[in-house]
Amino acid sequence: MERKIITLTSDFGYRDPFVGIMKGVILGINPSANLIDLSHGIPPQDVMAGALVLRHSVSFFPRGTIHAAVVDPGVGSQRRALLIECENFYLVGPDNGLLSLALEGQSIVQAIELSNRSYHLHPTSTTFHGRDKFAPIAAYLSLGIAPDFLGHRVEGFAQISWPEIVITDHGLLGKVVYVDAFGNLVTNVREKDLKAFDRERMVVSVGKVQVQGLTESYAGAPDGAFRALINSWGLLEISLYKGSAQNRAEVNLGEAIHVRGN
Amino acid sequence: MERKIITLTSDFGYRDPFVGIMKGVILGINPSANLIDLSHGIPPQDVMAGALVLRHSVSFFPRGTIHAAVVDPGVGSQRRALLIECENFYLVGPDNGLLSLALEGQSIVQAIELSNRSYHLHPTSTTFHGRDKFAPIAAYLSLGIAPDFLGHRVEGFAQISWPEIVITDHGLLGKVVYVDAFGNLVTNVREKDLKAFDRERMVVSVGKVQVQGLTESYAGAPDGAFRALINSWGLLEISLYKGSAQNRAEVNLGEAIHVRGN
Amino acid sequence: MERKIITLTSDFGYRDPFVGIMKGVILGINPSANLIDLSHGIPPQDVMAGALVLRHSVSFFPRGTIHAAVVDPGVGSQRRALLIECENFYLVGPDNGLLSLALEGQSIVQAIELSNRSYHLHPTSTTFHGRDKFAPIAAYLSLGIAPDFLGHRVEGFAQISWPEIVITDHGLLGKVVYVDAFGNLVTNVREKDLKAFDRERMVVSVGKVQVQGLTESYAGAPDGAFRALINSWGLLEISLYKGSAQNRAEVNLGEAIHVRGN
Repeated sequence: MERKIITLTSDFGYRDPFVGIMKGVILGINPSANLIDLSHGIPPQDVMAGALVLRHSVSFFPRGTIHAAVVDPGVGSQRRALLIECENFYLVGPDNGLLSLALEGQSIVQAIELSNRSYHLHPTSTTFHGRDKFAPIAAYLSLGIAPDFLGHRVEGFAQISWPEIVITDHGLLGKVVYVDAFGNLVTNVREKDLKAFDRERMVVSVGKVQVQGLTESYAGAPDGAFRALINSWGLLEISLYKGSAQNRAEVNLGEAIHVRGN
Repeated sequence: MERKIITLTSDFGYRDPFVGIMKGVILGINPSANLIDLSHGIPPQDVMAGALVLRHSVSFFPRGTIHAAVVDPGVGSQRRALLIECENFYLVGPDNGLLSLALEGQSIVQAIELSNRSYHLHPTSTTFHGRDKFAPIAAYLSLGIAPDFLGHRVEGFAQISWPEIVITDHGLLGKVVYVDAFGNLVTNVREKDLKAFDRERMVVSVGKVQVQGLTESYAGAPDGAFRALINSWGLLEISLYKGSAQNRAEVNLGEAIHVRGN
Repeated sequence: MERKIITLTSDFGYRDPFVGIMKGVILGINPSANLIDLSHGIPPQDVMAGALVLRHSVSFFPRGTIHAAVVDPGVGSQRRALLIECENFYLVGPDNGLLSLALEGQSIVQAIELSNRSYHLHPTSTTFHGRDKFAPIAAYLSLGIAPDFLGHRVEGFAQISWPEIVITDHGLLGKVVYVDAFGNLVTNVREKDLKAFDRERMVVSVGKVQVQGLTESYAGAPDGAFRALINSWGLLEISLYKGSAQNRAEVNLGEAIHVRGN
């Protein structure tokens, strides 16, 4: 039998056994599940970062992959538990927007609220739905249980909208939406947003840093020079060659970024 | 053939290749072993934290799972290397108490000192028994080698006893036994210890923080409010909604916690 | 079919989904690949640390294992992408020396520059060859595609040479080449380099710390005592029992270490 892939994404970090426990639950239901960690280093409760990570990862997995994600400050409250079936993949997680950015351009088959408790772990805690709901649901799904069995269909669900850029008289205004472990500053400016600009003459500024022109890669600059480039997610990024742009520019998540045609 | 699950737990962290090397050794012996990381973020040499992690994880894995654990400040000294066979799972690791908290309520079949060197890696270092003893033993066990072949039976082994609470005239006295990556303060107070208290009126205090009443979940409080709840391990926990209780309360491992009936 | 092992090593850390994305790419090509993380905690852009980690890990994996490694400050520049086929294993990664230290004592079959673009991901980014070149190459290799199909043979490739010790009138001079997560100071002094010294009388000094005699293991010293020993990689190491030698000795990577016969 084909080993179905289940990816796991969370803000659980790497100190505690919570991710390992989820894997134990899944393997108890489907011993042949192929478990892949996407990231457990999402900053605590940062639903937006989790949504961005899913958005830029799902297309690299084979068709039929199940992505279970837990960034879930509302666990145990009224927020719903959700399964979203797309043509190419499944998303399982809390209904707080975490799953929504990965859906752009996808054809959604149905959204299911995970209301059938016979597919949950019992007793079901109010603090760890990753273990008690999302892990078993992902496992049953990987066994081929039809989504309809796992709950009932719902029409709407929580959406995080892509943080849109603003076009100004002088260029465009975006912001830093993600900082990676190298300290690269990832923005909400997409490659297509830059079509009107000359790639060599455009000036990108963030905080006190100004960079002229887009480069192709991290390398080829003097050590310690800032670069602007289109990163592997197709987004405008400010990086520092062999250093952390975040630390050196003293810039953080949410900081405004300006692009001018110059 | 069924792929046997081997979980790995250690204080090796995530910087070095030590865990990866253990996996290489295991797969060299049993290529079909299903390797699952429980946690490698146990604080260095913190046998108690490792024992707690095992205690609250083993029951979520399928019957027959092999749990190999290495928190081992005494590696290379006279401390024995141990395999404990229970009805539901196997534990492999140093005889320093690390394995003992997971045994509560379990039916122990036998304890084996890993004295048969033909199942160790050669040369056998004095500094990395995870690689040279525990990894190969877990691998051979997963192939179906009987525990008796791996060493000789022993009667006693090192025990960490559960840190008991103290009943006072005014309530009960416990302590913080684990802090998770969110900064939640996990105590040694079990749900059953709180039976005599009114869940709404009881007051929990730790350091300068006082919380009245148990809540059901992390959510539903104002941001930055402390909560007391029974966590997913069945233990009393102090948390801070969307923040770190540890940092805000300036409280650390071992800090006393008081529960009063009020 | 046998599940081929592919190990992954990088400086990507554990915050971002980059490693998970590489796994998705691999599984899309070879669903039965057995993916093992060696380490993703290599310090950013530290090619030497990555080379040392590979050097001391590859021999513990079964014959035929494919090791894909990405510590790649020159990604997108002129540095070549490389596959090195040895008798016992395959190495895949950038041609910047990262792969070279693992080759000592190995019989090299051939080195291939990964010039056949039909085995790369398209579009191919200039910033993430781990995803676009090394992951797919490792996956195709694990399917049994012959190395010759993946590019053309090259004669030379970048080498990091082992940092040699210096013999002086008074003993030998080495340096700290790796610091592990426990804070142990790993040096470039090999066990064989110490043959001329009396193991009990020799004095090892680093910074302000002096240790007399080699011990067999971390344990058996008073808490907080420095030790000198031959570690599990066969290298001289300074450690602090139940503490971080790095922090206490205030010593860092590159610090000189002296061994005298006394």
